Amino acid sequence: MEPRAHFVTLAYADVPAARAFYVERLGWPVLFEGDGIVMIPVGEALVLSLWNERDFTAEVGPVRKGYGVVPVTLAHNCRNRTEVAEVLAEAAAAGAPVVAAVERAWGGYSGYFTDPGGFRWEVAWNPYPIGQFVRPDVETES
Amino acid sequence: MEPRAHFVTLAYADVPAARAFYVERLGWPVLFEGDGIVMIPVGEALVLSLWNERDFTAEVGPVRKGYGVVPVTLAHNCRNRTEVAEVLAEAAAAGAPVVAAVERAWGGYSGYFTDPGGFRWEVAWNPYPIGQFVRPDVETES
Repeated sequence: MEPRAHFVTLAYADVPAARAFYVERLGWPVLFEGDGIVMIPVGEALVLSLWNERDFTAEVGPVRKGYGVVPVTLAHNCRNRTEVAEVLAEAAAAGAPVVAAVERAWGGYSGYFTDPGGFRWEVAWNPYPIGQFVRPDVETES
Repeated sequence: MEPRAHFVTLAYADVPAARAFYVERLGWPVLFEGDGIVMIPVGEALVLSLWNERDFTAEVGPVRKGYGVVPVTLAHNCRNRTEVAEVLAEAAAAGAPVVAAVERAWGGYSGYFTDPGGFRWEVAWNPYPIGQFVRPDVETES
């Protein structure tokens, strides 16, 4: 099995609310949409799929409910600290709850926002080789 | 904010068990590893990060526990039906519970496996333009 993820699918009780956030407010493009599903290109050969909880449950299984956060985050990497702050401000303006960026013990700088389904995105600046792997234009000087 | 995901981070109670599955048994490469974290390249500018639940909780918040599945899946797309079956067999041989592939109402063919943290991977053949977006070598003939 090749080491490759092609889709990240998130299940939502309210797909139109998730669509409104990503497509209408953040301005992300739609690759495909159908009944209860919206697919957004989020990288080279990578799709973010917003899927309705009813169909997700039927195909995958009952969704875990209750207190706490889903043990998954997505990350969007930025060129530098300034861009991290700008992206978090943009997410906040789009209606997302935001946790302000802070210096991290590992040497980077990141904060979080939460999408309408409760999924967390980290917005990060990583000045090390890992940061350059995902973003060749990352600034390695702090 | 550019429409771009650079990391998918999954939180595990037992990172060494997750590492053993992905790295030792599936043979996926390691881009970086440190205390309680293993990073695996899973695409062009895309990293799968296996992170320990303790540090995830400290940074992101308490992890939701209980019955049911996390409302997230990852997908690995294949060229054709045969490859779907082969990949699922490989995952099973690596110790993952597998749900056998079936023809899907949308016209594709897919099954699932579950990693040591309970995260589901769909293994899919999608003969349509979406399948070609993530995999230009996909076979469009059934």
